Amino acid sequence: MNRQQLTSEIKRKKSVLCVGLDTDITKIPQHLLGEEDPIFSFNKAIIDATADFAVAFKPNTAFYESRGLKGWKSLEKTIAYINQKHPEIFTIADAKRGDIGNTSKMYAEAFLNNLAFDSVTVAPYMGVDSVKPFLDIPNKWTILLGLTSNTGAQDFQFTAAADGEKLFEQVLRKSQEWGTPENLMYVIGATKADHLKHIRSIVPNHFLLVPGVGAQGGSLADVMKNGLNADGGLLINSSRGIIYKSNGLDFAEVAANEAKTLADEMANYF
Amino acid sequence: MNRQQLTSEIKRKKSVLCVGLDTDITKIPQHLLGEEDPIFSFNKAIIDATADFAVAFKPNTAFYESRGLKGWKSLEKTIAYINQKHPEIFTIADAKRGDIGNTSKMYAEAFLNNLAFDSVTVAPYMGVDSVKPFLDIPNKWTILLGLTSNTGAQDFQFTAAADGEKLFEQVLRKSQEWGTPENLMYVIGATKADHLKHIRSIVPNHFLLVPGVGAQGGSLADVMKNGLNADGGLLINSSRGIIYKSNGLDFAEVAANEAKTLADEMANYF
Repeated sequence: MNRQQLTSEIKRKKSVLCVGLDTDITKIPQHLLGEEDPIFSFNKAIIDATADFAVAFKPNTAFYESRGLKGWKSLEKTIAYINQKHPEIFTIADAKRGDIGNTSKMYAEAFLNNLAFDSVTVAPYMGVDSVKPFLDIPNKWTILLGLTSNTGAQDFQFTAAADGEKLFEQVLRKSQEWGTPENLMYVIGATKADHLKHIRSIVPNHFLLVPGVGAQGGSLADVMKNGLNADGGLLINSSRGIIYKSNGLDFAEVAANEAKTLADEMANYF
Repeated sequence: MNRQQLTSEIKRKKSVLCVGLDTDITKIPQHLLGEEDPIFSFNKAIIDATADFAVAFKPNTAFYESRGLKGWKSLEKTIAYINQKHPEIFTIADAKRGDIGNTSKMYAEAFLNNLAFDSVTVAPYMGVDSVKPFLDIPNKWTILLGLTSNTGAQDFQFTAAADGEKLFEQVLRKSQEWGTPENLMYVIGATKADHLKHIRSIVPNHFLLVPGVGAQGGSLADVMKNGLNADGGLLINSSRGIIYKSNGLDFAEVAANEAKTLADEMANYF
């Protein structure tokens, strides 16, 4: 999916909502456990229920890998289902991969070509040749970790170089030499919403994937006010706050209501 | 596997050789392609041929993920085979994972408990809560990226903070508060062998996993001289230089010879 397609979907829906499919077998409704593939059944229902309010879906690969082969099968079915039934929705493999060039190329192949996600999240520590192979795949996106929303973000991301530039700022600056606003986005933790204005000055045109609205505690209003640009330029993720709001028979309906509530709030800023 | 078991195997074999199972369907001998699972058949032969000279095996997960479900099946069979036939050999899932706490916990579960690897490689960018869940699994190891061997290592890892401390030094220093030499190792690129002496002064007791001897160009002698400590303290990886040395019917025999040559060189330093 290219930028223009993503932007037009955002403007049509007046939403930048990304629904995180962090699907955990211990948290999904009991009544699904008798299904052949409970994880896929759950995802399918959530996807269909929230597709009118969301512009992106983001399965977190760890939740699938932790179930081994059957987990990978659920992941394959989930992305295939989105691509078939809701091709207008942007897809993110939240995989946080990154390795030397020939290895990153394999990961890019796995997620962007074989599974056919639109994008994959990538860790920056290993530098240019660990990121480039993802960027080299046409019509796909790399979402590089910039500033994350967890407590450990304090450990290294805020370390300032001699000239005062913090590590996350260096990542945002330097990686703009590797990709463009047409194929590179950044993960920016919402709990650092006070930093968003500053981050926008470093990357005015790039899309930002903002995790952590909801369970991780960020403020939606702050993110919309400081992060939105002319093309939208934001994808705001919510996972647990939507998908696990009810674990009864009505789980999909309740998820739809939660997604709608967030999308309605977002619409105020368009 | 605990440190004492690993060390006694190193001393018995006078080897710190790790064989990297970067198994690529396009590079394995043609005659294996008719097998039910060519990747597993190749790995099995390499494992049996090199087990006398190696103390560790390291499948690189990207090579398996890039083949989807059948790749994961090959990976599962490979680790199960090593654990069953060569339980004295240390196993590394070279996965370079790392995410917020609840997600890293899922990855730790996937690789250390379910697949039953002894260790997994982890990226440090997201800090303490992205690393801790791996360290929390008893009798298992986390191998944190310190200084990598690729060109992109220059981009961020050498950035110096105001006090002169480089990012990779900060990672080595800070992470010692999270784990101990009994459950934490570091990836240290061999092509930076001149840095090894300095790195040993920061982490005198930890094991170092050194990729890049061979195809990535590091010098074995430099690494042995500057990296070895009383417990061995090193795992030196070679992948392509061993496993793809021949792609004829004799591939396993040739791999064994290559592994033996490296192990013989290593024995000089014990």
